[in-house]
Amino acid sequence: MTVKIAVAGASGYAGGELLRLLLTHPEVEIGALTAASSAGTTLGTHQPHLVPLAGRVLAETTPETLSGHDVVFLALPHGHSAGIAAQLGPEVLVVDLGADHRLADPGDWARWYSGEHAGQWPYGLPELPGAREKLAGTKRIAVPGCFPTGGSLALAPALAAGLVEPAVTVVSVTGTSGAGKSLKPNLLGSEVMGNASAYGVAGAHRHTPEFAQNLSAAAGKRVAVSFTPVLAPMPRGILTTASAPLAADVDEPAARAVYEKAYDAEPFVQLLPPGTWPATAATVGSNNVQLQLGVDVDAGRLVVVAAIDNLTKGTAGGAVQSMNLALGFPEATGLSTVGVAP
Amino acid sequence: MTVKIAVAGASGYAGGELLRLLLTHPEVEIGALTAASSAGTTLGTHQPHLVPLAGRVLAETTPETLSGHDVVFLALPHGHSAGIAAQLGPEVLVVDLGADHRLADPGDWARWYSGEHAGQWPYGLPELPGAREKLAGTKRIAVPGCFPTGGSLALAPALAAGLVEPAVTVVSVTGTSGAGKSLKPNLLGSEVMGNASAYGVAGAHRHTPEFAQNLSAAAGKRVAVSFTPVLAPMPRGILTTASAPLAADVDEPAARAVYEKAYDAEPFVQLLPPGTWPATAATVGSNNVQLQLGVDVDAGRLVVVAAIDNLTKGTAGGAVQSMNLALGFPEATGLSTVGVAP
Amino acid sequence: MTVKIAVAGASGYAGGELLRLLLTHPEVEIGALTAASSAGTTLGTHQPHLVPLAGRVLAETTPETLSGHDVVFLALPHGHSAGIAAQLGPEVLVVDLGADHRLADPGDWARWYSGEHAGQWPYGLPELPGAREKLAGTKRIAVPGCFPTGGSLALAPALAAGLVEPAVTVVSVTGTSGAGKSLKPNLLGSEVMGNASAYGVAGAHRHTPEFAQNLSAAAGKRVAVSFTPVLAPMPRGILTTASAPLAADVDEPAARAVYEKAYDAEPFVQLLPPGTWPATAATVGSNNVQLQLGVDVDAGRLVVVAAIDNLTKGTAGGAVQSMNLALGFPEATGLSTVGVAP
Amino acid sequence: MTVKIAVAGASGYAGGELLRLLLTHPEVEIGALTAASSAGTTLGTHQPHLVPLAGRVLAETTPETLSGHDVVFLALPHGHSAGIAAQLGPEVLVVDLGADHRLADPGDWARWYSGEHAGQWPYGLPELPGAREKLAGTKRIAVPGCFPTGGSLALAPALAAGLVEPAVTVVSVTGTSGAGKSLKPNLLGSEVMGNASAYGVAGAHRHTPEFAQNLSAAAGKRVAVSFTPVLAPMPRGILTTASAPLAADVDEPAARAVYEKAYDAEPFVQLLPPGTWPATAATVGSNNVQLQLGVDVDAGRLVVVAAIDNLTKGTAGGAVQSMNLALGFPEATGLSTVGVAP
Repeated sequence: MTVKIAVAGASGYAGGELLRLLLTHPEVEIGALTAASSAGTTLGTHQPHLVPLAGRVLAETTPETLSGHDVVFLALPHGHSAGIAAQLGPEVLVVDLGADHRLADPGDWARWYSGEHAGQWPYGLPELPGAREKLAGTKRIAVPGCFPTGGSLALAPALAAGLVEPAVTVVSVTGTSGAGKSLKPNLLGSEVMGNASAYGVAGAHRHTPEFAQNLSAAAGKRVAVSFTPVLAPMPRGILTTASAPLAADVDEPAARAVYEKAYDAEPFVQLLPPGTWPATAATVGSNNVQLQLGVDVDAGRLVVVAAIDNLTKGTAGGAVQSMNLALGFPEATGLSTVGVAP
Repeated sequence: MTVKIAVAGASGYAGGELLRLLLTHPEVEIGALTAASSAGTTLGTHQPHLVPLAGRVLAETTPETLSGHDVVFLALPHGHSAGIAAQLGPEVLVVDLGADHRLADPGDWARWYSGEHAGQWPYGLPELPGAREKLAGTKRIAVPGCFPTGGSLALAPALAAGLVEPAVTVVSVTGTSGAGKSLKPNLLGSEVMGNASAYGVAGAHRHTPEFAQNLSAAAGKRVAVSFTPVLAPMPRGILTTASAPLAADVDEPAARAVYEKAYDAEPFVQLLPPGTWPATAATVGSNNVQLQLGVDVDAGRLVVVAAIDNLTKGTAGGAVQSMNLALGFPEATGLSTVGVAP
Repeated sequence: MTVKIAVAGASGYAGGELLRLLLTHPEVEIGALTAASSAGTTLGTHQPHLVPLAGRVLAETTPETLSGHDVVFLALPHGHSAGIAAQLGPEVLVVDLGADHRLADPGDWARWYSGEHAGQWPYGLPELPGAREKLAGTKRIAVPGCFPTGGSLALAPALAAGLVEPAVTVVSVTGTSGAGKSLKPNLLGSEVMGNASAYGVAGAHRHTPEFAQNLSAAAGKRVAVSFTPVLAPMPRGILTTASAPLAADVDEPAARAVYEKAYDAEPFVQLLPPGTWPATAATVGSNNVQLQLGVDVDAGRLVVVAAIDNLTKGTAGGAVQSMNLALGFPEATGLSTVGVAP
Repeated sequence: MTVKIAVAGASGYAGGELLRLLLTHPEVEIGALTAASSAGTTLGTHQPHLVPLAGRVLAETTPETLSGHDVVFLALPHGHSAGIAAQLGPEVLVVDLGADHRLADPGDWARWYSGEHAGQWPYGLPELPGAREKLAGTKRIAVPGCFPTGGSLALAPALAAGLVEPAVTVVSVTGTSGAGKSLKPNLLGSEVMGNASAYGVAGAHRHTPEFAQNLSAAAGKRVAVSFTPVLAPMPRGILTTASAPLAADVDEPAARAVYEKAYDAEPFVQLLPPGTWPATAATVGSNNVQLQLGVDVDAGRLVVVAAIDNLTKGTAGGAVQSMNLALGFPEATGLSTVGVAP
């Protein structure tokens, strides 16, 4: 079975990574590629690495250009997906890489994004408890934010097992592609290279309620989340350091056993051998999550470190993995655990 | 008054930065430059940016080559300073950029470094309460570790004022020069670029007891410290994100007032205007600490971010600042708040 | 047909890239992985991105550990291949990623590498005239150097067509992985980042005679080559700027026609649309060569720019492409024109 | 004697570097700082590294805001300087960091920049023959382009001495700050990092006629210049590889003697010891030019490599050096040969 897919937002980084993955997906035929201000130009202008598609001309993002496809990926700024999805028909699988359908609580939406809440869709992080059931056969998928992908997987098992108190600290060091191709001075190469900077500190980043939603579900109670993103001079990758106070007298082997149980069967979560800590370079272009944990006895905290590629597992890879589940393909089709390093 | 200085370890990064600063210090004459395996080679081979000293030949690091100077800077691996200092005579100002004389507790030394404890010297972080008194006129200075420099200044005022609980989380993103010129595979450019990685996690890093010592002194009680360093692809800079649970109903203006009181008179600590967050690029080559704080009401935490140059304020700049205090020079002599950017 | 392959030098960058590619090659079974000082450790220690092979233990590089394979890739320092190849038997396809069998002239070998000349093998750059004929069915392949790969393809058509004089200037900006995992101070991340430096200037680099050999063959007469490599702060990629005096009154369309004729049927050479210049980022992880040319009327020179990934097309990809030709597989098997960007 | 200076274009990279240098210049008082679209904001918003000037408010760039100063630096896009200079009065020293007054030939101006030719001013590259005489006491200075700075110094002595033919090849690897703060997609950090790319190839870059003008003057006859800039992932620095056919039977010592004679008395040109090649990192923030040369006997060419900081010697440092000459200050005032490394 071959499905015909369209990508709205094909000129951006998320769209480009989707196409890179879908070019190797054996069950997919690449149909319409659309954009906003770049409509009318060739894909090669924006994505010179996607050689087989270099000559494709970008159409405008409209319900018409997107119609006639089995799957439509929406890689658009937030607030743009709901209107388009409504016009695509219920038989089309719509995969939203934006934020519009991630949050359950209209109050959270109003506070963090503003505008009308578009409602929640099945959440495309299959490794969370219960997620695969909701993704199987669905026609609507909300792809997680890049930060909550690694951070939620880092902490959910410990919270679910009651190893830690429901008050977590998350600091995520991210590459620049997470900010997209926005033409902002602070994203210029001259500014980014040789520089580490914090932003969205002290509860100001929009991924905070998504973290809280995922982790509270895992814990079965409200989890307080302190989240700080740090911009680092690299194009890809998120390294998340997450920690929480130990709730019980847990040693490292016991904590490790909890994580092994949670992830041993997961194709895209790799608990590293003891003594080895994650590095984002190992995950570049792969759908892999590298994890390691430690128990800090002096500080009384569990510390978990997770590395992902923000564009692959953190965005486009997660989207393809979830599409596979929705359509009944083997979950790993078109995806790899192998990174491009050095 | 001109003092004659010697630098032991002149071929390394800390030694090079010291010399860069001392070349502009009006009261200093640069005497012996020594090294271990590089003895006999010219400084220009190792420090091509120090043009005026390019032809200087490195001597071996011995009490003899270091004798006859008013000030001796020891930029050596830990465990090497005490023996040399003992042979330099009490009239010489010895500034140890290594770890040997930072910790008060022999038990901490034994646990984190092993070997005999060399005793504690006045601590070269003038901005900590009481530090300037101990540095004035001293003949022995222990320069702080690069991580505790920014991290201690980030949290000490809040702990001293009782704003937060004595349980802090510190994640520091660091450039590679902090690891020195060690020829380790993980420090190769090919490994470092495009990569963020954690190390020394869960209480394994040697700067942890130094953090605890500084912060416990500020709080007046034992502070539990969870510290994680993250290696980022940049040569210089440390961006520290530090947080702790709020101890009282404190809002941002109140927290800010505490930090303004602590640092308004400090020449090298800059509390940024509200809404602006620190970036390491602004501090490159400068002795400046950029600080910003936020109160995360949802998470119930105070978050403080600090940016420094690990080689300047975090090592060599702090050493010069402390030397100035010890010798009675104006504290900022030979130092600058101006960074080299972009 | 499945062939069993072995990789000698599996812990290095060339070996790692080979395995990354071979993991996706449908006709290949990965057999012995060997190393020198790293023998006895797991591959995951050295290549954390090769997750499916993480647990494989590295054997010592000996004729015994390499025996019993259909194909043996030698990713070894120069001077090590000939001895091993002699013991592998004529029925084994030996692919040498080192320099030992590239040069025809024993005098060149003696001057540039020293030691006994091991003889020349068929040269693994299929896009050069006559190369495919020699590679078909061969049991011995000399993989080109990374610099001559892009540089030879940039200039060969113009020299063959007599567009330019046989005196060329080549400046190649390279990422650091070309130097391998050598623990040299100048390859440390702290030294490399924020830095561009020249080395092997004025005829001192060992790839110079290989350039001359390839280009002289294309021109049908001796070509003088001025080659300068420049080390740039990136892990992968070579951007080559090559130029030569125009030999005739050639305009850009005429020059372009020559290159189109040479490369239009090539699966891995992409002459970019006019006005677009190559960038290495578009080739990361791909086997693609991006080319563009211009005629500088004022200077009277043809200028050709080529971008490749030094580890893929420049080393491991070129090796797999040549293996495919030797074994009769479709030439592009296991290879891609799609890069990983940004 | 203290002079009062103004900087038009203070929010950009050239303006920021000027101010960084002028903050240490003992004879300068910093007056008006002006900008275009950033007028009304504080300097700290744009130049967070210039701490002592953080609170200064940017005025609009008008003849009125710039009046009342002894020296006015114009760090503006090309085409903007002539009109302003005309209104500043002949007693004011106007230092133009843009291109408007560099070219002698109106035809060159028309071809490369278009618009009316503003006429040529004394050229701010004191190390070129005759330049200091024209700069002494002048009230108008044209600061060279960043590429011609290093490239002209690399080749002028050889051309003047007749060592080489008047046909040169120049490839310059540059950091991104040379492009300014322009918000272009190809200058985003995500695009720049891990990437080397060519632009302005085959005679298309505007610095080409400036090269030709400088080198032809040195040679005493028309010199043909093939110039290619390559963008590399670093904020600062230009590494230029320049070469030309040997005109005579010159060996390396003879060529070296020519360069020693040309530059031994120069405070800011450093001919490196034989065997050492330039690296841009050693020049960061310094006004130094690192030079090295080699004779490639096989290729019959002289190869010269030069490293500079494009913002310092290549722009703002060259401007300050020329101002010093114009005002009769010691030439090196406010400038340093010491770089910030690593």
